[in-house]
Amino acid sequence: MDARNHDGLNQEPWLWPTQVWQQKLNRVRAGKALKPGKWKGNARLAVALSFDSDHETSELRNGGVSFGRMSQGQYGARSGMPRILRILEKYAVPASFFMPAVSAMIHPEEAAMIVAAGHELGMHSWIHESNSRLDESTERELALRAASTLEHLSGIRPVGMRTASWDFTPSTLKIAREMGLLYDSSLMADDEPYELLEDGEPTGIVEIPVEWIRDDSAYLAMDRTVGARPYGAPLMILDIFRRELELAYDEGGLFQLTMHPHQIGHRSRIFILEEIIRLAHSKPDVWFATHAELAAYCANEAGLAAASKAPS
Amino acid sequence: MDARNHDGLNQEPWLWPTQVWQQKLNRVRAGKALKPGKWKGNARLAVALSFDSDHETSELRNGGVSFGRMSQGQYGARSGMPRILRILEKYAVPASFFMPAVSAMIHPEEAAMIVAAGHELGMHSWIHESNSRLDESTERELALRAASTLEHLSGIRPVGMRTASWDFTPSTLKIAREMGLLYDSSLMADDEPYELLEDGEPTGIVEIPVEWIRDDSAYLAMDRTVGARPYGAPLMILDIFRRELELAYDEGGLFQLTMHPHQIGHRSRIFILEEIIRLAHSKPDVWFATHAELAAYCANEAGLAAASKAPS
Amino acid sequence: MDARNHDGLNQEPWLWPTQVWQQKLNRVRAGKALKPGKWKGNARLAVALSFDSDHETSELRNGGVSFGRMSQGQYGARSGMPRILRILEKYAVPASFFMPAVSAMIHPEEAAMIVAAGHELGMHSWIHESNSRLDESTERELALRAASTLEHLSGIRPVGMRTASWDFTPSTLKIAREMGLLYDSSLMADDEPYELLEDGEPTGIVEIPVEWIRDDSAYLAMDRTVGARPYGAPLMILDIFRRELELAYDEGGLFQLTMHPHQIGHRSRIFILEEIIRLAHSKPDVWFATHAELAAYCANEAGLAAASKAPS
Amino acid sequence: MDARNHDGLNQEPWLWPTQVWQQKLNRVRAGKALKPGKWKGNARLAVALSFDSDHETSELRNGGVSFGRMSQGQYGARSGMPRILRILEKYAVPASFFMPAVSAMIHPEEAAMIVAAGHELGMHSWIHESNSRLDESTERELALRAASTLEHLSGIRPVGMRTASWDFTPSTLKIAREMGLLYDSSLMADDEPYELLEDGEPTGIVEIPVEWIRDDSAYLAMDRTVGARPYGAPLMILDIFRRELELAYDEGGLFQLTMHPHQIGHRSRIFILEEIIRLAHSKPDVWFATHAELAAYCANEAGLAAASKAPS
Repeated sequence: MDARNHDGLNQEPWLWPTQVWQQKLNRVRAGKALKPGKWKGNARLAVALSFDSDHETSELRNGGVSFGRMSQGQYGARSGMPRILRILEKYAVPASFFMPAVSAMIHPEEAAMIVAAGHELGMHSWIHESNSRLDESTERELALRAASTLEHLSGIRPVGMRTASWDFTPSTLKIAREMGLLYDSSLMADDEPYELLEDGEPTGIVEIPVEWIRDDSAYLAMDRTVGARPYGAPLMILDIFRRELELAYDEGGLFQLTMHPHQIGHRSRIFILEEIIRLAHSKPDVWFATHAELAAYCANEAGLAAASKAPS
Repeated sequence: MDARNHDGLNQEPWLWPTQVWQQKLNRVRAGKALKPGKWKGNARLAVALSFDSDHETSELRNGGVSFGRMSQGQYGARSGMPRILRILEKYAVPASFFMPAVSAMIHPEEAAMIVAAGHELGMHSWIHESNSRLDESTERELALRAASTLEHLSGIRPVGMRTASWDFTPSTLKIAREMGLLYDSSLMADDEPYELLEDGEPTGIVEIPVEWIRDDSAYLAMDRTVGARPYGAPLMILDIFRRELELAYDEGGLFQLTMHPHQIGHRSRIFILEEIIRLAHSKPDVWFATHAELAAYCANEAGLAAASKAPS
Repeated sequence: MDARNHDGLNQEPWLWPTQVWQQKLNRVRAGKALKPGKWKGNARLAVALSFDSDHETSELRNGGVSFGRMSQGQYGARSGMPRILRILEKYAVPASFFMPAVSAMIHPEEAAMIVAAGHELGMHSWIHESNSRLDESTERELALRAASTLEHLSGIRPVGMRTASWDFTPSTLKIAREMGLLYDSSLMADDEPYELLEDGEPTGIVEIPVEWIRDDSAYLAMDRTVGARPYGAPLMILDIFRRELELAYDEGGLFQLTMHPHQIGHRSRIFILEEIIRLAHSKPDVWFATHAELAAYCANEAGLAAASKAPS
Repeated sequence: MDARNHDGLNQEPWLWPTQVWQQKLNRVRAGKALKPGKWKGNARLAVALSFDSDHETSELRNGGVSFGRMSQGQYGARSGMPRILRILEKYAVPASFFMPAVSAMIHPEEAAMIVAAGHELGMHSWIHESNSRLDESTERELALRAASTLEHLSGIRPVGMRTASWDFTPSTLKIAREMGLLYDSSLMADDEPYELLEDGEPTGIVEIPVEWIRDDSAYLAMDRTVGARPYGAPLMILDIFRRELELAYDEGGLFQLTMHPHQIGHRSRIFILEEIIRLAHSKPDVWFATHAELAAYCANEAGLAAASKAPS
């Protein structure tokens, strides 16, 4: 159990009094639905593509001891990113790149290229650390340092974040509010954007929800210590993403996708990205947006205070 | 090995005298087959759909420390349930919803809506606790409290239960008998309903058997600590469920299915539920029943005393 | 490392002197190829179907603490076996059933039915114990008791064995020789039968090789403690078995298959068995044999002494 | 964390000063791209097939305690290799076989046959040991002994190596340089060959990159202790390899493949190898090369000093 178990009770969950589980339940929770009547430009479908550009930090965070995994990370920057950027350019669609600060320091030209091409550069931790192993002050300090580093390297201060490994602690939302962020993209309570509640109170922060279902790593990552292998057939992944997109269209909703350059960027997988973009493009009424544009639009439509934090 | 290993012998199983393994074998076991000559209304196929509405309790039971997993649970209630209820309504088929009491307390409107729509609300533990970690009196107390909570919230006292994680202890059957339940749905000794034996004696309790094969979670759940990933292709799951259903039809039997709102309720998966219902509907002689209706019918046909406990 | 590591050296393998790894290598090893020029009746293809009828012993061996897993075992006997026996009868093909002695004691009518239908009943441990956790005298005693139990229940003394979990110890071959067995079916050094060598010396014992590739459990077994789930699509399993069979036919060889009643016996899987039998039946020149018949034929063709141990 | 963590700092990675992660990052890293304008003979596609002929050493390295796994290793040599060599001969394509020295000592006729057929025999450790468990002097001694053993058995001194399990230590590159090797094939930073950097300095050593995506074991290996099972459908593996090859052709690049005789050599899998070769053969402008020929060509085109180490 978490070292930061904040209730001070050392009981088995089935012995908890009601207020204990209620407090846990309400610490961070989905509130007001932020799906607008229509998306920008009267679009029926919103598409928000994102890439977590972890590169070598996935292994550095583990101590940097495996040169094999370090080389897989370098592949993301060296071979994966050029293929991804070429496809985004070909179809002229924007995307959000969430980059650990150390990854951006290793690849400053990548951070610059992302911004120059009109994409969003979002926060994604310092070195892909697991937030739940940090105390609050360390988590805050790393978050502030990450924001400053990205701003320094790209010239633009990030307005949103995605926690590394989607590891969201009891302090994460508090820190995001202190930093005046527009949005987070790490939680999974809905298919559509929503406002985050903290202890039951509206925060004005927009959540752009993610899901393992719409994450390439869930199918493709290899982990020798457990049985995780690249068992996800490329055509199965395309089929799943396509079904998520088609029903989003039917519902007039959002299709959000999380990918990793060192996973989707491979020769046998990159077609998945292109096919999904082609499918969305084939719809007459689609809006491709960065996560920041999407969050700002939702906040604005719903009259949230956060709308003012949107990038110009 | 289980702390409640009830034989008092500390031997390796290959050194056990015969009566030791016989006693274990007979503690809880499938008895009399309860498949009737014909299903209700002269139907050839019985279809019993069920949903385990665990929602946030899957994570609360683990201590409630991951906001990511908590948000996945909330998804079940917020996004999954509306899709499921819409499909059941569209085809006018009843289903059984097994709900931990804490889940019903978090979502009382859901519990009420289930009953109002004519579906069954069944017991499914207090907070999704693992029974085998409890002593008998704790298991009993939680079961009684769960039944009262569901009755209080829905106005109907549940007549059946499904153990959380299908974790059935040496005390579970005893408690179910004390509570006068009509049926359990946690064991796997047959495709068709059967009477449970306790230490070789008929209990009058009907078992509606489940199987991982007919459980969406077996294919779709993600567990980072082991290699479990959403590797189950949606079309593979449909193919497996379809084959189970087709042979049930050929045999004039029962097709039972277990699903979870936070799994099957997703955009890329919900079609599986609809396709299975459409397939069953296309048969000229199908009976869609709640688990309670099914158990009552079987008990009645076989002349079990439990038949009198059936809901009116 | 194995407690019975029999070299007395406590070194890392890369520091071993040559004779250490040579001794390990030669302890039990594939020798003379026993594939005959033609199979019985001038057939081009030999088909040896087998079923490990573990039933409840898989769980009893673990202490018999999970009623869920115990009920899955009972399913094998109660629901799986009738489907299997019906298909074997429909196509009039013989098979070998490897049954732990305790499983045969729980289901004596099954053991009798197998023999009455002309199938083979082979040894498969006492209670599905892991041989490598036993000392030699315990392994011997359990093997002898298992053989006597099967003989007592079926009237025929088994001539072959399959170790539970294919767990073959340094003593297993020695015990098989002492018992005068015709064959073993637990190892994987070839697609075709071969003679086993012990410390480099021919033993006269025939090995009918198995493989996880041709084992239903490798694709279908569910193990919650690791990431093993029923991810094996039924059509994928059929495709793999079919390819194994087709190339066996091309090579004029043996197609051997291992199944489990509680796995293959399910409604969504039983078609795999029927389709494989239909495919083999469609060949003009196929010989369906029990493992014992196959081993005896190979031993006889090769002039092994073991041929005299063949069942009449 | 690695016992040989060479920075002397005992800090969590997120507390590291910049120079710590920079030093780790640069220890071994991809440098100059070595993809030539055209492949040999003006080819558009280079195909480099490789087989890791581990055979029994995979199990000997673990202590040699499981006769089952040992027999699976023997299968590679006894049944897998003949099928592989036949296909390579049928299409007249060369390949590289990476063989642990102990595997070559167990199967000297295989080592000789490989070289006689015009294939390459490359280094692949002493007994498939994990380099990261060795100190530098042991790693060096085993590497030197492995090279001498292969040279003694085949008459040709190897010019390249692949680390067992792609386990590359901080000493591995240093030892390869001392040995004057032409190339390594264990890392994954690109699809195309590149020059390895050591602490930021060019080494002249060519890296022929591998990937789990193009490794049969990632899909097919069975590991009971984790959930790894042979879940990789043969047709999925072919589809993935085919997509890797097709895009390599589109990009005018290299298609490199890693296989294992005891995996790909099975009846249900060997068609994958043949289909991939047929597909490549169907291209009008393909160059099939051993890893050594490929590395020498790249080194020569780029004017690396290593070019002089190429085999004549």
